[in-house]
This record gives sequence, structure tokens and C-alpha cells, in this order.
Amino acid sequence: MPMIQVTMLEGRSVEQKRKLAQRLTDVMVEEAGAKREAIAVAFVEVSRESYATGGVLMADKK
Amino acid sequence: MPMIQVTMLEGRSVEQKRKLAQRLTDVMVEEAGAKREAIAVAFVEVSRESYATGGVLMADKK
Amino acid sequence: MPMIQVTMLEGRSVEQKRKLAQRLTDVMVEEAGAKREAIAVAFVEVSRESYATGGVLMADKK
Amino acid sequence: MPMIQVTMLEGRSVEQKRKLAQRLTDVMVEEAGAKREAIAVAFVEVSRESYATGGVLMADKK
Amino acid sequence: MPMIQVTMLEGRSVEQKRKLAQRLTDVMVEEAGAKREAIAVAFVEVSRESYATGGVLMADKK
Amino acid sequence: MPMIQVTMLEGRSVEQKRKLAQRLTDVMVEEAGAKREAIAVAFVEVSRESYATGGVLMADKK
Repeated sequence: MPMIQVTMLEGRSVEQKRKLAQRLTDVMVEEAGAKREAIAVAFVEVSRESYATGGVLMADKK
Repeated sequence: MPMIQVTMLEGRSVEQKRKLAQRLTDVMVEEAGAKREAIAVAFVEVSRESYATGGVLMADKK
Repeated sequence: MPMIQVTMLEGRSVEQKRKLAQRLTDVMVEEAGAKREAIAVAFVEVSRESYATGGVLMADKK
Repeated sequence: MPMIQVTMLEGRSVEQKRKLAQRLTDVMVEEAGAKREAIAVAFVEVSRESYATGGVLMADKK
Repeated sequence: MPMIQVTMLEGRSVEQKRKLAQRLTDVMVEEAGAKREAIAVAFVEVSRESYATGGVLMADKK
Repeated sequence: MPMIQVTMLEGRSVEQKRKLAQRLTDVMVEEAGAKREAIAVAFVEVSRESYATGGVLMADKK
């Protein structure tokens, strides 16, 4: 029963999340032998003020 | 100092979260021998468009 | 389909984890109205050298 | 810079994890428009004694 | 490529998160020898109704 | 009561984790106004076969 947590910037459409959920699940079934019904995907979406790389908030990148 | 992170669909009432926090903490004290004050519970709530099982968003399930 | 992640010090017995999984799940069913089969519990166990409170590793506390 | 954390039972081979990392990343690039270099995948592997569904440890399922 | 996830109460200003991201990243570079560009920081902010210690929601503490 | 989870490659010494825990906690106290005793830091260490960036396992990078 794998759990996939995707932490990403907010702003993706429902259609994008629909496709992501479907295809990330497909990959787990095909490559890890997991049962489809047992796979959960959660999108934890953070704002550009709550995400940084290299020590700089996304909101501050030009 | 156990940390319990509960990822669940949004929509639970404050009263439900109050009871959940209390009782999840009780279980950690009684079964894991953890000190009550040292236990933290966080509810990470995701929308029906951000949660999928079996590759299908909760928002798309009939 | 709630996911409960418990981050705690390693060292609990299988019997303790059995009871924890069972009772944490009971609480989610009774207080959050979740379906039993849909609840997952994962124990992420860390060593005393990998866990700190108040800025001090558990391994360094007297 | 999406972060994908996959919590799953231990026991997958390196070759399986290699394929999973590659293909999960492909999906994020193709469906979420993320930059390939910016995507991280972490596998958090738990034992059958540390993972439960429906309140029952995987180790206790027949 | 370390990933730092900070779960905390909502309410910090952008300026506080800017400083936190910068300085948490500095620490990872200086003490863990990580490459600056490879470090990601995500703030997962929860409300006072979604966070508890000692079994009591922050919202219920006097 | 902030919780800091650091996901990183295994291999850091206890002395490095001691310094990391201390200084990450200092930053939370100084910049977020958190109470020192209430801050927890957990290091979730993954192997080079369980961590990928850009779709490539760390174990496969030259």
C-alpha cells in the first residue's frame, strides 16, 4: 500500500492533478508491482512564499 | 517525542479534530509509553482534488 | 483514505506496533468516520542520534 | 522543485527503484511542467512490522 | 539534495519565512556539507485547529 | 511546536547531526519566535539507492 506524497507549488489545475494521480499510480503498479487500489497519492501544495531552493523563496526569484 | 502526521481530506469539524488529537495521543501514551506532553499531532488536510486512491481523484469518484 | 505517519524513536516491539496500528485506526474510524480498510499507518523509526528536541539529540540527554 | 516522497514496504530491488525514480520524474515533467533537474524522489522504506492497513500490520496478514 | 520540511503554525510573515529559508539552508551547507542549490525548504503551515501537543489543540490552549 | 523533518542521504556523523539539530533549532527560535523546548528535529536518512534527483539515483551518478 504505497503512499506517494507530492510537495509542489500550488497552481496546477484539476486536470493536471487528475493526470498526475493516474500516471504516478500507473508507474507504481508497473514498476513496483503494487496493487492499484492500494496506492494513495496526496498533493501537498505550498505557496511561492513557503517554498525555497538554494535558500531563496520562489517568490523572490526573478 | 513522537510526531503524528495525519493526512486526510479536509472537512472535519474542529470538534472532530479535538477528539482525534486527544484520543490519538492517549493511544501513544498507553501503548508506546510516550510522555503525553511530548506528543505532537498535525492534521494536513487536502482537498478532494488533491487526493487520489487507485489513481482516481476523490473529486472524480461517484 | 487517511494516512497516519508516526515518527518515533526506534525500539518499540512488534507487539507494541500491532496495538498502536489497531488502536490508531480505531480512533480514525470512530472519530473521523473513515472507512477502516482505507486507513494506512506507517511507523518511521529514527535512532536516538537522529532525533532531537530543544536542539539536543536524544542520545545526548542524560 | 517538486519533492516526491514514496513510503512503501522495503524489498524493492535497486533496479526497481531506478525505474521508479526515472518514470515518476518523467510524469512530473510531462504533466506538471516541472524542470527535470529540480525534481527529487525519496523512497522511505518501512518493514512489514511498521506498516498497517485496516489496522493490521502487513506482517500479520496471511 | 536535502529536503527540509518545516511543519508549523500558520501566521509567520513572508519576511520571517525568507530569513528561515536562508538560514536553515546556511546551516545545511555549513554543517552537512550539502550543496546550496540542492537544498529545498518547504513550510507546511497548519491552523491552530489542526495542531495539537499533549493531546490538546493549540486553539484550545489558554 | 514546530517539527523539522530533514530527509537526506545517510552517512552524516553523530557530531554533524548534533550540530545540525542545535543550529536548526537556534534558527527556529531566533527567526520564528518558537520556544526552544517545543522544537523537534528528525533526520530521515535514505541510502544512495533510495534517493534521486533529475530522475537518476544518487548511486548511479558518477
